[in-house]
Amino acid sequence: MGFLHEGHLSLFRKARRENDIVIGSIFVNPAQFGPHEDFSRYPRNLKRDCALLAKEKADWLFVPGPKALYPGNYQTFVDPGALARGLCGRSRPGHFRGVATVVAKLLNLALPDRAYFGQKDYQQALVIKKMIQDLHLPVKMKICPIVRDRDGLALSSRNSYLTPEERERALCLARSLNVAKRLIMKGIREKRAIRTAIRKILVPELSRIDYVEILDARDLSPVKRISGTILIALAGFVGKVRLIDNCLLNIPE
Amino acid sequence: MGFLHEGHLSLFRKARRENDIVIGSIFVNPAQFGPHEDFSRYPRNLKRDCALLAKEKADWLFVPGPKALYPGNYQTFVDPGALARGLCGRSRPGHFRGVATVVAKLLNLALPDRAYFGQKDYQQALVIKKMIQDLHLPVKMKICPIVRDRDGLALSSRNSYLTPEERERALCLARSLNVAKRLIMKGIREKRAIRTAIRKILVPELSRIDYVEILDARDLSPVKRISGTILIALAGFVGKVRLIDNCLLNIPE
Repeated sequence: MGFLHEGHLSLFRKARRENDIVIGSIFVNPAQFGPHEDFSRYPRNLKRDCALLAKEKADWLFVPGPKALYPGNYQTFVDPGALARGLCGRSRPGHFRGVATVVAKLLNLALPDRAYFGQKDYQQALVIKKMIQDLHLPVKMKICPIVRDRDGLALSSRNSYLTPEERERALCLARSLNVAKRLIMKGIREKRAIRTAIRKILVPELSRIDYVEILDARDLSPVKRISGTILIALAGFVGKVRLIDNCLLNIPE
Repeated sequence: MGFLHEGHLSLFRKARRENDIVIGSIFVNPAQFGPHEDFSRYPRNLKRDCALLAKEKADWLFVPGPKALYPGNYQTFVDPGALARGLCGRSRPGHFRGVATVVAKLLNLALPDRAYFGQKDYQQALVIKKMIQDLHLPVKMKICPIVRDRDGLALSSRNSYLTPEERERALCLARSLNVAKRLIMKGIREKRAIRTAIRKILVPELSRIDYVEILDARDLSPVKRISGTILIALAGFVGKVRLIDNCLLNIPE
């Protein structure tokens, strides 16, 4: 999606270490934006993106225009299933359909051996992983850790929307995840207690909470108690900017 | 889908002539049958199919069980667009979604250079062609002519459902296409006149007409007059057996 930050570059560097040829794709995908979302004002800086990827020794950049991937008579979409329904899929209907479709297209065009995605968009990563498995796409997917700024804010192209004051507020997301982790490390296993602690930190800072969820990280199904491989996932609005964050925990049963 | 006839074998022989390695796939795809359709009683004869393809010197046969392609947590589907909505898509909702999905899966599993489909299922062929184009699947598609029995009946695995008397009635499909062609050769260009002539032949023989359509063969859009590349497509029931047939015409403007 371009407007590259260190999160994207970390994927790129990992790909560079593990492969002979690395292709970067920069494409703000209209199909994954809802009608009232920020497609037209989504941040773009192609010149800077190209310079950054050249510095990382990209072999190829793929920078199609929207009409190249979606010509006038375009009509085939990849429809993900249950994994796409909760979390961001609930508040952004059609979003993961657009994501799955464009990723299928990009993978088929490049036919890479490996494709690198960030854990920051954890649900997206699972949807794509399931699509690759279900449709037998000939690629191995790698999910790479979230990259954060020094203050803990998970990197996102949308952080560029934030005023300095909003940015300060946005730190509540990472802070609440840290508090949750600490409570769990201390032995607390009730989902409700953790969610309440998270909400207590988010409520004063966010203009709206979209979700605070504690789920089975493998298939995003609900969990009763905190054990096994757990995802804590957050989404909310700082002013008008929608931000997400998450963490993965492995709790011995 | 197995229960192979000379139509399938003609595809296979063409593939054999044009390629070094040929794979046949036999899979009765549950995803393309509606809840009240004939999935469970669809004709099957794997032993015979294998013998036929061995005789044609198949390099590989791919014969997965339903759970191999659709395991319990299966959830990703390829959704075709406008091309899948008319004709058979109208009377068989979800059919082309199931077709597009399984063909995407089979193509990704085998990664062939070329894939061969029959013109008998013309709408299916167009839906698949568009999917290949839209999703950039790395394969070249070949659409091969309809193979008919001596009496003109287009070959279909479902012909095995017909009683001798029904089979006689089923000839009305091919006969009506021939009449239509003759009228067009004579210079008639009004769609209505052609459709009326076709219906007049079908009505006494079929238990129900599903559709008689004259369309632009490139995108299945309606045509006003008969000119350019035209598809005449028929579907109807002989007793309880649903049969389809079609012909392509190239009429100088």
